[in-house]
Amino acid sequence: MAFQFLTNVDLEKAQKEYRDVLLQNGMRPGTEKIPAAESCGRITAGAVYAHICAPHYHASAMDGIAVWARDTFGATETTPAHLKKGQFTVVDTGDPIPEGCDAVIMVEDVVQEEDGVCLYASAAPWQHIRQIGEDICAGEMILQSYQRITPSAIGAMLAGGVLEVEVLKKPVVGIIPTGDEIVPPTADPEPGDIVEFNGSIFSAMLRENGALPVLYPIVRDDFEEIKAAVQKALNECDMIILNAGSSAGREDYSSEVIHCLGKVLYHGIAIKPGKPAILGYQGAKPVLGVPGYPVSGIIVIEQLLKPLLELWNHLPGTEEEAAEAVLSRAVVSGLKYEEFVRVRLGYVENRLFASPLGRGSGVISSFMKADGMLRIPRDTEGYEAGMKVTVRLLRPREELKNTLLAIGSHDPLLDELGDLLHKENPKLFMGSAHVGSMGGIMAARRKENHIAGIHLLNEADGTYNEAFLEKYFPNGGVRLVECVGRTQGIITASGNPLGIRSIQDLKRPGLRYVNRQKGSGTRILLDYLCKKEGIATDDIYGYEREEFTHTSVAAQIASGSADAGLGIYSAAKLYDLEFIPICMEQYDLLIPDYAWETLMVKQLLQTMKSKAFREKLIQMGGYEIGTPGCVRRRF
Amino acid sequence: MAFQFLTNVDLEKAQKEYRDVLLQNGMRPGTEKIPAAESCGRITAGAVYAHICAPHYHASAMDGIAVWARDTFGATETTPAHLKKGQFTVVDTGDPIPEGCDAVIMVEDVVQEEDGVCLYASAAPWQHIRQIGEDICAGEMILQSYQRITPSAIGAMLAGGVLEVEVLKKPVVGIIPTGDEIVPPTADPEPGDIVEFNGSIFSAMLRENGALPVLYPIVRDDFEEIKAAVQKALNECDMIILNAGSSAGREDYSSEVIHCLGKVLYHGIAIKPGKPAILGYQGAKPVLGVPGYPVSGIIVIEQLLKPLLELWNHLPGTEEEAAEAVLSRAVVSGLKYEEFVRVRLGYVENRLFASPLGRGSGVISSFMKADGMLRIPRDTEGYEAGMKVTVRLLRPREELKNTLLAIGSHDPLLDELGDLLHKENPKLFMGSAHVGSMGGIMAARRKENHIAGIHLLNEADGTYNEAFLEKYFPNGGVRLVECVGRTQGIITASGNPLGIRSIQDLKRPGLRYVNRQKGSGTRILLDYLCKKEGIATDDIYGYEREEFTHTSVAAQIASGSADAGLGIYSAAKLYDLEFIPICMEQYDLLIPDYAWETLMVKQLLQTMKSKAFREKLIQMGGYEIGTPGCVRRRF
Repeated sequence: MAFQFLTNVDLEKAQKEYRDVLLQNGMRPGTEKIPAAESCGRITAGAVYAHICAPHYHASAMDGIAVWARDTFGATETTPAHLKKGQFTVVDTGDPIPEGCDAVIMVEDVVQEEDGVCLYASAAPWQHIRQIGEDICAGEMILQSYQRITPSAIGAMLAGGVLEVEVLKKPVVGIIPTGDEIVPPTADPEPGDIVEFNGSIFSAMLRENGALPVLYPIVRDDFEEIKAAVQKALNECDMIILNAGSSAGREDYSSEVIHCLGKVLYHGIAIKPGKPAILGYQGAKPVLGVPGYPVSGIIVIEQLLKPLLELWNHLPGTEEEAAEAVLSRAVVSGLKYEEFVRVRLGYVENRLFASPLGRGSGVISSFMKADGMLRIPRDTEGYEAGMKVTVRLLRPREELKNTLLAIGSHDPLLDELGDLLHKENPKLFMGSAHVGSMGGIMAARRKENHIAGIHLLNEADGTYNEAFLEKYFPNGGVRLVECVGRTQGIITASGNPLGIRSIQDLKRPGLRYVNRQKGSGTRILLDYLCKKEGIATDDIYGYEREEFTHTSVAAQIASGSADAGLGIYSAAKLYDLEFIPICMEQYDLLIPDYAWETLMVKQLLQTMKSKAFREKLIQMGGYEIGTPGCVRRRF
Repeated sequence: MAFQFLTNVDLEKAQKEYRDVLLQNGMRPGTEKIPAAESCGRITAGAVYAHICAPHYHASAMDGIAVWARDTFGATETTPAHLKKGQFTVVDTGDPIPEGCDAVIMVEDVVQEEDGVCLYASAAPWQHIRQIGEDICAGEMILQSYQRITPSAIGAMLAGGVLEVEVLKKPVVGIIPTGDEIVPPTADPEPGDIVEFNGSIFSAMLRENGALPVLYPIVRDDFEEIKAAVQKALNECDMIILNAGSSAGREDYSSEVIHCLGKVLYHGIAIKPGKPAILGYQGAKPVLGVPGYPVSGIIVIEQLLKPLLELWNHLPGTEEEAAEAVLSRAVVSGLKYEEFVRVRLGYVENRLFASPLGRGSGVISSFMKADGMLRIPRDTEGYEAGMKVTVRLLRPREELKNTLLAIGSHDPLLDELGDLLHKENPKLFMGSAHVGSMGGIMAARRKENHIAGIHLLNEADGTYNEAFLEKYFPNGGVRLVECVGRTQGIITASGNPLGIRSIQDLKRPGLRYVNRQKGSGTRILLDYLCKKEGIATDDIYGYEREEFTHTSVAAQIASGSADAGLGIYSAAKLYDLEFIPICMEQYDLLIPDYAWETLMVKQLLQTMKSKAFREKLIQMGGYEIGTPGCVRRRF
């Protein structure tokens, strides 16, 4: 089709031109009157002026009598003033001041007489009176145009007699999911189905940014159907998100539809993820073509729709909280695109570290785990490990400072420990990265983690962990803390249809193995076992197939795409798989001295000793529980 | 009554004991299952685990053919592999991998043959396949307990087959307004009526803190009625706010009612405002007696209810953003209470200044204007001007840095200028304090403002402003910028019933004058006029009655509590009052050199030259408009 071309325009240029063309075409917010009492968080459409004064009458500020001050002038201890009935009125705090009075005398200073009162001091005009308008004067500007309404602003409006306030209408943003393979969220999708969860992510993002989302039904990959859906949404909404179908593939009608109903400013932005975005519009209404991968979609909405929402609500562009961080791993980037790299952040000894997370644009979990975002400009090939980079924070700095970094070998018990830790103390969090036991040791040497799970077998004597710490920390500076004994074994399909009994069976022709990544304790264990039994690892089909966690090894076997993998009992149990125990190993925590005194580690040790943790381990199964949280040895 | 006593307990002690007794009595959140798609911002009640893997099937990551990798082993340029029909399947990106296949070969690398395909390289097992669980594995923990749900967490849940999520129920907080004089919000209250706006303020505060407010109808000052209302609310809510009636006055039934239905931990906290708060409870439900004055109420809710809401939602206590500021005025404080002083904050030349705002607990506008809060401990008598103090920020620091501080003489046109400034540039704000022309000059000498409105008559030659700048800035460093000519005159009741014609009339017996504060240009003008006409100011009844703005002078006259005041035309017009012109004066802006190059001042000058400002001035009336925004003279 004629319009299936991709540009590669600079993000900033695209943002500016998109904004300009929409403003030129008359994009601006509508306004609506709403009850002032329900206006919290909304944005005023114009200046708000008080209708009445607050207080709206002269009120006594004391219990006492109201008088005309002049009647008391000259009163002293020796020449008191005598006021007759009619010259004063008894008032309580809050009572209106009677006509003709202009001062209040406290009850303590009034001496009762038969036909009136006696005063021993003169009153100053307006003493002890809360005057009209003391708080707010009628006609005074209470709120400016385009001001966010706060709880106290509501109070000021109601006090000023403003019961209704004109605010900016929230922009209505229609979201249209498209695609033949897209199905509504379900707990039981068929192979080939793609669950439509983008709409829910985008809706939540829109709400957080002051818009009203409308999620339309899923539309098939059909030009006319998509066109009709977009036209309907254009009639009903202020802005449109057309999801998926924005790359230049064969069933991608988005740009064609937009071109047919309006105009396409750009199709293709020089960002990654997010490249195939379409910046379309019909008159003053943006129609944004958003790629189907969730991560791309989130970035396109943040970079291209959010600025329009801010423009609509007259908000200054969000000031993003940024911080300097040290990169713990190199990131490579192409010269062609600006890259948005999600990073995990962590403070170790007051230094902020950034570790790049998985960059697949389909990986929604990486967005959820991301603590920050690193932008790599177009003309940059990437950054070296150890470089200082500027990252945008996605979590409050305070939270990052209270996050325990568990970087090392994987065990699901770490997630449970993190959960218990936060339950114990709402201030504390755990973040983990699965880099294997050796990766954990190396991270500790670079001072980039607070704890590391390790289970490293010393082939010489069959002991665990200590020999490695001796070797890699010759000058000491770490503690080895007991965690659990755990059973490693062969995980295989339920019922063990292949009749697997031992490591020897793994080299059987036709058997498909799934391995763990290099440097992981489980892979080292496999290598050791193979060596001991004289098996060449080349003979194991799938030896090169790497997964990063016990759980994902079990998931592959459960799906039928592999027949066997080495792993722990709790992972097998999670998927109801068969488990052939091979050996018991010691899974411990390495804790460097620099982390020992932190609140996070102190709480962690306490949590490890808790009943709740022990119960959790029993429930998960396959663990041998001694005295978790106790120091085995200090190096 | 027996329980009408006031304690004076330390705030921190009270907070801790209140929390402890409620926890002991079993206060804890309920939970509810809600659709994951609608859970943004809610807090998980427990850890959330994926039900299915994402992707939930092995998907092709490319367009090409799916094969069993072993069939291709050994294929090279010279010894290609030939695959027959049945040995491969054509797949598009996203398609499920057929049973028996474990690799995808890109379409570019496939050569078609008559009865199959020819391959010149071997495929590695699992190449170009998005494996099951690449993003999320079934059984994996997606969210921890007590975690705030984000848009991407919603995506992760839906991808993981979690359609419903267990979250903490929002606490339902009942608000019961009490008092005989309390009326629902109205634009036309009777004298003596007190408009019930606290309920709306509190509701908005509660919503912002994750609670569900229920605002009950106003209850008369009657023990049984209040008791019934509290009992009803206890049946329907998790927490209760009993508003007003919390001091120990004669109609204050709150503590008695709470004592009757539950227990009173403390009645009286050593804070100001907020002292008469009642910390009551029935079992696990807090019943908080909150004073009637809005400012006291806000502080009591922030200090005593908000911590309970945080406890309920398992949030760490809010980290309040604090900053060091220089006090621009002394604050005096009693030793008996901890004081909460609202302050206006402003950055001048990168120094943060704090100016205490009106401390009346009835003054809701002071809360709305407050940029920060200064806490003065119990044992402190206050702070000197110029001292460094720590303030809690109520507005983002970035906003404060972009706020133009107009401290000097009052004119309503300043509010309009501030409005236009923010309309022009959403980043910019104006804050103003009315301290009179001389106050403005002094603030500029101390470098505490960016601009000051001044209108100071030089009695010697009848000129305005310049002589004062020469005198107070002998070394220069300021510019005088033209603003407007404005008519000063006598404001009096509509129709001028007293037949006032000139300044001479002000000394008439029976006439009630209302004056401006010392240091204001208008008061200086009155003194000058009196001197010229030989009037002793002692002869003017009300000469000592001071108001801080033209508007509030007009408000007093409109209310009938004064007969005359000197002021500007626009203030008279606002209240439809009679205006007897006395003279034309020059109202200019003083702009110190240190502020001249700021973005705020640059934008201000542009705004002053705009058509919109000119139109606003014409609409307000009484101004002579020359070339506002132009520099008259540089000193």
